Amino acid sequence: MAMSGDRAANVERAVALAREAAAGGADLVVLPELFSGRYFPQSAEEPAFMAWAEPIPGPLTERLGGLAAELGVSIVGSIYEQARTGLRYNTAVLLGADGSLVGRSRKAHIPDGPGYAEKFYFAPGDSDYPVFPLISRSARPTTLGLPTCWDQWFPEVARLLALKGAELIAYPTAIGSEPDPAFAAIDTHDAWRTVMRGHAIANACFVMAVNRCGREDGIDFYGGSFVSDPLGEVIAELGREEGILRAELDFERLRLARDLGPFFRDRRPETYGGLLSADLATPVRPPP
Amino acid sequence: MAMSGDRAANVERAVALAREAAAGGADLVVLPELFSGRYFPQSAEEPAFMAWAEPIPGPLTERLGGLAAELGVSIVGSIYEQARTGLRYNTAVLLGADGSLVGRSRKAHIPDGPGYAEKFYFAPGDSDYPVFPLISRSARPTTLGLPTCWDQWFPEVARLLALKGAELIAYPTAIGSEPDPAFAAIDTHDAWRTVMRGHAIANACFVMAVNRCGREDGIDFYGGSFVSDPLGEVIAELGREEGILRAELDFERLRLARDLGPFFRDRRPETYGGLLSADLATPVRPPP
Repeated sequence: MAMSGDRAANVERAVALAREAAAGGADLVVLPELFSGRYFPQSAEEPAFMAWAEPIPGPLTERLGGLAAELGVSIVGSIYEQARTGLRYNTAVLLGADGSLVGRSRKAHIPDGPGYAEKFYFAPGDSDYPVFPLISRSARPTTLGLPTCWDQWFPEVARLLALKGAELIAYPTAIGSEPDPAFAAIDTHDAWRTVMRGHAIANACFVMAVNRCGREDGIDFYGGSFVSDPLGEVIAELGREEGILRAELDFERLRLARDLGPFFRDRRPETYGGLLSADLATPVRPPP
Repeated sequence: MAMSGDRAANVERAVALAREAAAGGADLVVLPELFSGRYFPQSAEEPAFMAWAEPIPGPLTERLGGLAAELGVSIVGSIYEQARTGLRYNTAVLLGADGSLVGRSRKAHIPDGPGYAEKFYFAPGDSDYPVFPLISRSARPTTLGLPTCWDQWFPEVARLLALKGAELIAYPTAIGSEPDPAFAAIDTHDAWRTVMRGHAIANACFVMAVNRCGREDGIDFYGGSFVSDPLGEVIAELGREEGILRAELDFERLRLARDLGPFFRDRRPETYGGLLSADLATPVRPPP
């Protein structure tokens, strides 16, 4: 999706796209990060945007839940969540095909840089990396993880979700060009795509990234939503344009990947204690 | 390298290739996994191959150390290590440009499957994932991690090494086709390459994989040695043929990647405790 400055219109556009996806046979519809508005963290430290946050459950989950029940599909939305006064999260929600709010997953890793100044707006999710049951008409039951955007660069997140049983990880996302001249020469698109394909391979699970597109002030959001299978093969991908990306997940492929690469058998968690530290480097003593 | 059945000839071939690399300006020469012989774990549970193991330091480290001192380059070798009676490891060693044995890194994750039956031959490294200083003539000092082959599929390993200060991770490797009919249709080459490019991106470090090539009994080793930069760009790559792969590492690129993607700033180690478990899935109760 490309988002306009009209928040009500963005929601209606998302509803229309979800209807179209469901009419095409979708069991699960995933919307991009903070789909109801422009990507406001492009503005550093602007308190006015804090008023955009809303409770969960709240108006947006009501709307998406009603739509999910009407269409008989599961829907993932991404909402600026007002948890309590002064405490806000960037939160993915899953609405079940019966319209119920199955659960929420608060973005755990918060970026902060030119054009992506999120630490002012979002607290880091108090997250235990939840996973959710996903029931659908056309596939066997499976388990879904819903981290958000910046979480996608952290292998720890995908691994924790896979250890909890996730077979499908969906990342609502907002990423595009780098507005700061220091980074402008770098196109992050291929790195972004590759690091998530890496998570799919290392955890032998399906990964999908659902990105916004279009120009908003200083950022060209590059779209490129894709689905990777458990061997890292991109089975569906959009270009920079708005659209509906459809993919059919073959769980036999997941079984094959996990039998060929029995990483869960061979992990050595007793040797991973250092992952709980921020820095393990031996300090370098400057020359006297 | 492609390996023959003549172990002395394989070592001489490695020495000749290292000489050629050094003559071309190499500061660091990395050899493939277990370069002195055929890939014997293709044979499941064959005790005769246990006699191939040798101590470290031992004949091979003496030979490589002498060569390193003569050429003034650092050399990484991969050796079937006899640690004590009945205890053997698959071990990477670093010989410094002065010929000294800088250290060893024992393969921590041991595969076991058709054609790659390693659990019989190698104990899992008692590894604390060591890193080593790398001093060279043409670049600033840096820090090197030396996991081996199957370790390359585990994001935990690359992350631990990066947390310890590694800026360069080199994986001696032996991987090729899948001899079992159940997996024969799967070409793992792209997944192998992608998962390591993912480690490079997630840790903003250089990654190199040094694979064997050639046919040995039931396996076509696919070569494809490559070097990825810290943004996941493959800056040098071989095909399926034997050869010397040269790459120049631009540490300014590493600085840029780490400033653009400050993952170490944004990690949340206090939430990663689950990584120390083997399985976090809630047991599914079968229907009564």
